[in-house]
Amino acid sequence: MIKILVDTLGGDGSPDINIEGGVKALKNNKDLEVVFVGDKAVIEQKLNSLGYNGERAYIEHAPDLISNDDVPTVAIRTKKESSLYRCFELLRFNDDVKGLVTTGSTGALLAGAVLKLGRIPGVKRPAYCPILPTMNGGVVSVCDSGANVDCDSQNLMQFALMGSMYMQKAFGIENPRVALLNVGTEEEKGDALRKEVYPMLKECKELNFVGNMESRDLISGKYDLVVSDGFSGNVLIKSTEGTCLEFLKLLKKTFFKNLKTKLGALFLKKEVKGIKNKMDYNNYGGAVLLGAKKTIVKGHGSSKASAVFHCIEQAYTLEKNNLREDIEKVFKPEQE
Amino acid sequence: MIKILVDTLGGDGSPDINIEGGVKALKNNKDLEVVFVGDKAVIEQKLNSLGYNGERAYIEHAPDLISNDDVPTVAIRTKKESSLYRCFELLRFNDDVKGLVTTGSTGALLAGAVLKLGRIPGVKRPAYCPILPTMNGGVVSVCDSGANVDCDSQNLMQFALMGSMYMQKAFGIENPRVALLNVGTEEEKGDALRKEVYPMLKECKELNFVGNMESRDLISGKYDLVVSDGFSGNVLIKSTEGTCLEFLKLLKKTFFKNLKTKLGALFLKKEVKGIKNKMDYNNYGGAVLLGAKKTIVKGHGSSKASAVFHCIEQAYTLEKNNLREDIEKVFKPEQE
Repeated sequence: MIKILVDTLGGDGSPDINIEGGVKALKNNKDLEVVFVGDKAVIEQKLNSLGYNGERAYIEHAPDLISNDDVPTVAIRTKKESSLYRCFELLRFNDDVKGLVTTGSTGALLAGAVLKLGRIPGVKRPAYCPILPTMNGGVVSVCDSGANVDCDSQNLMQFALMGSMYMQKAFGIENPRVALLNVGTEEEKGDALRKEVYPMLKECKELNFVGNMESRDLISGKYDLVVSDGFSGNVLIKSTEGTCLEFLKLLKKTFFKNLKTKLGALFLKKEVKGIKNKMDYNNYGGAVLLGAKKTIVKGHGSSKASAVFHCIEQAYTLEKNNLREDIEKVFKPEQE
Repeated sequence: MIKILVDTLGGDGSPDINIEGGVKALKNNKDLEVVFVGDKAVIEQKLNSLGYNGERAYIEHAPDLISNDDVPTVAIRTKKESSLYRCFELLRFNDDVKGLVTTGSTGALLAGAVLKLGRIPGVKRPAYCPILPTMNGGVVSVCDSGANVDCDSQNLMQFALMGSMYMQKAFGIENPRVALLNVGTEEEKGDALRKEVYPMLKECKELNFVGNMESRDLISGKYDLVVSDGFSGNVLIKSTEGTCLEFLKLLKKTFFKNLKTKLGALFLKKEVKGIKNKMDYNNYGGAVLLGAKKTIVKGHGSSKASAVFHCIEQAYTLEKNNLREDIEKVFKPEQE
């Protein structure tokens, strides 16, 4: 049995989408147990309304919410009745609890992981690692994307190793193509940090390092994992996602402009829906926090039930494939 | 009279687009003089074929090209017959030569500006400052976007001041909204550099500092100038541009998929062309190198004649509006 916590609070569609996603995952995996964390009465009612018999489903009552208005580092230590606080208590003190899926505050999640849960021995910094769809139907991940805004070359090396293992374990990519985010593709490009880490990445036998990558090529499909400090990585994923969203908005506005454009849009409906689906994070998993002591998956705040389902599947798959144990093995001999 | 050099070599459409753009600018401004730098015979022939009478047009013979395959710092010092080498000689030794417009190698341009031309006194580092179209029909600039990959807070302050003056002088924006590129909008966000420079920006009376900006909002129209180190700034503009281009490609593919989609696209032709025009850098100017001793404007390598025309207009406008003199005044009292 693999036991995963599902935080039912935080996120636009909570708690409904979290519970629906959880039930779907329970039905899909016979050796999965889900602990729904949140308001007990609400969760019970929702499970009933879904007609789920409660098999392998547990409830932990913690009805308070850590919102985006809370100061993460304070809230995660003081809001003891909050779902996320309780999740970290459960992760910390129960060996059989293997992971957590949440659509709540990213800040509180990162704070909880660092302050309450801790790292896998040998990992200097856990890294936030989201995935984005590529233009050819695949996925690409950026490690780190915001957990560590100030990094050194050792951090980046660890991000590369953890991220590469992650892409293997989560998406079955055998020999992930690892690129270094830089201002140009030539070997000599970059700031002091990039110039220092490039030869380290190149010489590392455990990595399929393919060189520098320019940000414009992120979703081209040419790379599986992009290594970055958390500041530039955050700039990269948010600008790519943001531009996609702005474009979809503009397209929608164009389609609804007048009768003629509406007619045109009608002929293109299926195909444009295809583009939107391709870009829709609800069809993929969430971001993982690599290097944390337990498996943590963060879904978008505006996730639908299908996104939560994919996030739980992702956490389940990573546990099945022993990602944490493998990171532990690789990093253990290193001195901190 | 304002004398501007137009480098006719480098760029996909050179020398034709550079000469066409130059002639258009000459016709548009009666107090503009253009020195076309490149192969004399080719330039003469082109001017003839355009039927231009040669008024206020000069030719400087320098037929060699610095290509993207050359090592910029080496080429700019050794390729003495190249157009860009000659441009920097002319800028350096002729007071009446006010500026340069080129569609050639960015690396060689930056190298030439630093190694041969030099900075305005008091400017620590010249900054590369491109403009992007926003979703509401305006423009936004990112300063720096790649000239300085390692920066300190003093550099960023100077980028903010120069960039703000630039947006006033080039686009008539009276009180440019200046934002700091960061990983979140809250004041306390960011790495060590951002935390150090935020209060400096906030306290600076010469700036209309509106706070932190997330990369997803670059083209939202909420900001006029984004301040960044050259590494993150480069990541930001290339990912935004790159995603726009990938999206347009995908849209085109979708439109040509089958008969039905082609029909739909026909109804949307005008509007989609409108989107493409909005996104097309050919309708805007180029990137300027703020803080260099003379006005330098760099057009896209794939510019059309209209883009070159806009770049020349931009250099001309900045000279007319005395941007360089104003930067000199503001920075002069500072100790280097």
